[in-house]
Amino acid sequence: MRMVDIIEKKRDGNELSDAEIRFFVSGYTEGSIPDYQASALAMAIVFRGMNKREIATLTDAMEHSGETIDLSAIQGVKVDKHSTGGVGDKTSLALGPLVAACGAKLAKMSGRGLGHTGGTLDKMESVPGMNIFLTDKQFEDQVNRIGIAIIGQTGEIVPADKKLYALRDVTGTVQSIPLIASSIMSKKLASGSDTILLDVKFGTGAFMKTLEDARELAKTMVEIGDSLHRDTRAILTDMNEPLGLAVGNNLEVKEAIDTLHGHGPKDFVELVTKAGSIMLQQAKIAKTEEEGERMIQKAIEDGSGFRKLLELFQAQGADISYLEHPEKFPVSQYIVPILADRDGYVSRIDSLEIGLASMKLGGGRATMEDKIDMSAGIVLQKKVGDKVNRGEVLAYAHTNKVGCESVFQEIHDAYNLSENEVKMEPIVREYIHK
Amino acid sequence: MRMVDIIEKKRDGNELSDAEIRFFVSGYTEGSIPDYQASALAMAIVFRGMNKREIATLTDAMEHSGETIDLSAIQGVKVDKHSTGGVGDKTSLALGPLVAACGAKLAKMSGRGLGHTGGTLDKMESVPGMNIFLTDKQFEDQVNRIGIAIIGQTGEIVPADKKLYALRDVTGTVQSIPLIASSIMSKKLASGSDTILLDVKFGTGAFMKTLEDARELAKTMVEIGDSLHRDTRAILTDMNEPLGLAVGNNLEVKEAIDTLHGHGPKDFVELVTKAGSIMLQQAKIAKTEEEGERMIQKAIEDGSGFRKLLELFQAQGADISYLEHPEKFPVSQYIVPILADRDGYVSRIDSLEIGLASMKLGGGRATMEDKIDMSAGIVLQKKVGDKVNRGEVLAYAHTNKVGCESVFQEIHDAYNLSENEVKMEPIVREYIHK
Repeated sequence: MRMVDIIEKKRDGNELSDAEIRFFVSGYTEGSIPDYQASALAMAIVFRGMNKREIATLTDAMEHSGETIDLSAIQGVKVDKHSTGGVGDKTSLALGPLVAACGAKLAKMSGRGLGHTGGTLDKMESVPGMNIFLTDKQFEDQVNRIGIAIIGQTGEIVPADKKLYALRDVTGTVQSIPLIASSIMSKKLASGSDTILLDVKFGTGAFMKTLEDARELAKTMVEIGDSLHRDTRAILTDMNEPLGLAVGNNLEVKEAIDTLHGHGPKDFVELVTKAGSIMLQQAKIAKTEEEGERMIQKAIEDGSGFRKLLELFQAQGADISYLEHPEKFPVSQYIVPILADRDGYVSRIDSLEIGLASMKLGGGRATMEDKIDMSAGIVLQKKVGDKVNRGEVLAYAHTNKVGCESVFQEIHDAYNLSENEVKMEPIVREYIHK
Repeated sequence: MRMVDIIEKKRDGNELSDAEIRFFVSGYTEGSIPDYQASALAMAIVFRGMNKREIATLTDAMEHSGETIDLSAIQGVKVDKHSTGGVGDKTSLALGPLVAACGAKLAKMSGRGLGHTGGTLDKMESVPGMNIFLTDKQFEDQVNRIGIAIIGQTGEIVPADKKLYALRDVTGTVQSIPLIASSIMSKKLASGSDTILLDVKFGTGAFMKTLEDARELAKTMVEIGDSLHRDTRAILTDMNEPLGLAVGNNLEVKEAIDTLHGHGPKDFVELVTKAGSIMLQQAKIAKTEEEGERMIQKAIEDGSGFRKLLELFQAQGADISYLEHPEKFPVSQYIVPILADRDGYVSRIDSLEIGLASMKLGGGRATMEDKIDMSAGIVLQKKVGDKVNRGEVLAYAHTNKVGCESVFQEIHDAYNLSENEVKMEPIVREYIHK
């Protein structure tokens, strides 16, 4: 088998056989197929696409290109969720404890933030003492004992994706549904959970700019999971504004705590309730959507979700007095109000701009080597649909840096105001499952 | 400027600016742009194409990526011709001496054969003593003195194309008119002649499979030459059978000699006459097609073309007694008749199969390291249009190897026979010029 023939076959719009796809993935992983052939194939896939069988085989081959995680030592249904990357997305920190409090098992591997998107691990580390590196045994024991653990990636899972993703990033081949879907799904499948809930975001600041593209990606991933016998479902959620109010590490942890205390922002509570209900159905704990939602609401009201958050952080070594007394978290030296310069209704808040602004204030990384300021970020005061008067505060910028005037302007400009009232849409727009 | 942005721009179907194209060519040549980005861009060009301006800029940037040849020390109009690679294509060996005999100047750099196509340099070296490496001074002096020199490439001309062509060959990005046209034209332009005649072949065994594709490639190249102010014209010639009768190195030299003596195969004589006429018009030696053709015919009839061939080979050190007495050339040990197994009319002779068969008999190279058997090859006895009876000889295979039975079968199978008479088409199908 020759790689150039495989490239030409796809270039000419033909289906690749399973053997050809596996030849590519194993050859590329081990280094016998060079980057320049992989990038040419990736570009041909951008133009020609792949059918369901090809995508499933590609995903399966990537999943098995390295170690896969065995969670069989953990009793019960292991649920997992994955978001395609949002701004202000602290979902795991509230949703995880809630579903665990309801009896699901969450053995989660999470990531760090880069660019305009934050990472759950960074947010967790804003609490002193937090340890995100557990041994396999510690990880399993903790999930068996308290139902939840959230750690950094262990071992060399999906090396094919790691290598291919880095290549796609510099060769203009990121935007391809087969490649995006197989990248996400190979990692989730290798992580070993029994069920997967995908939160596919759309809008500015999201990977998928339109609802239609998000739907196609979600359907593709659900089909992959289905064909590889893993209960996979997806929700499509609106990223035409940041999720909730807080963007930035300890700011988002505080918002997750508020949410578990019953004081969360409306859109975030809606997302957590809907997503939690689906995960409880996947875990066979709830039978219907309504039952699942009631269980999540109850876990907020009776405080069991918050107690699970404390258990999670305590088990991983954190000083939970910060969670019990959030006023202990460091606060930025400068908290700058960003004012509206005219009247109107908020029609859109550019998530990408807000994410980048938060990064520039110190709350994120431009490169993986950058150090994060845990207190920096942005707290929105106005969300889409809100009426705004000239001179009112749109948002507060939190920073320890000076000379951020241009960033303040960017936050201001991220707000789109309309003269007319804005029709509100639910954040969870669609639910896609078999 | 970032290469990934350039790739994405082309991927999305947008025009690249001149600055972007030059950034790519210079960066790729010097090594700051890696192969994997170049192959991704090439694949995007396969799908999206390039407009006239982009192709002209790409060609110009490649032409100037290394040394360019300065032929200004040679008096008169320097004409050049290039064929897109055929089987049995000994055109330069007959056409070159003929146009030089008529007063045009041919300062030609030629190549070696690979795969199913032969190379002029290899054919020339079948004459003992032939030297294809001249210094720039020797090259200029020879052309000034006798009007013709044919040598191997000197200096580092068009390094960008050399690198990009090798990459395209292994990444499924050869088949792209903008990339093929800029590759050919950058080399011809860098070679410094005043005029260029392109012989674009179509059919099996040719780069372009159809007349339509050949026409598009030819028009593209003529436009490039035009926009870069070089008199460029093209003919489209039929490669649905090998050119002439002989395929193989000294076999083809002998056929070129026969042609200069007035005994050439019909199709080859037609090609040489038409191409020669155009080159003489480009050199302002002939005013019309008819006048040019008459001059070429006369140079055959009065022996001046053959005398120029002797001058050329003598000037480059060859033992011209081989040209004067072609029976001196070594002859293969085995000359095997390939017989027709039924009656019919020859409708097509697969040039690719004949080229590959000649290579396997010893007449060509599978890799650049292979050594050529100068006497090996194939001499056709029947051409398209000929009536064949069962048991008649279709061709003779010449070889010094044993165990070539499967190759004999391939030669047999390259002949397509039809029950009905076959309509003959002229070999030069179209003439494309400004």
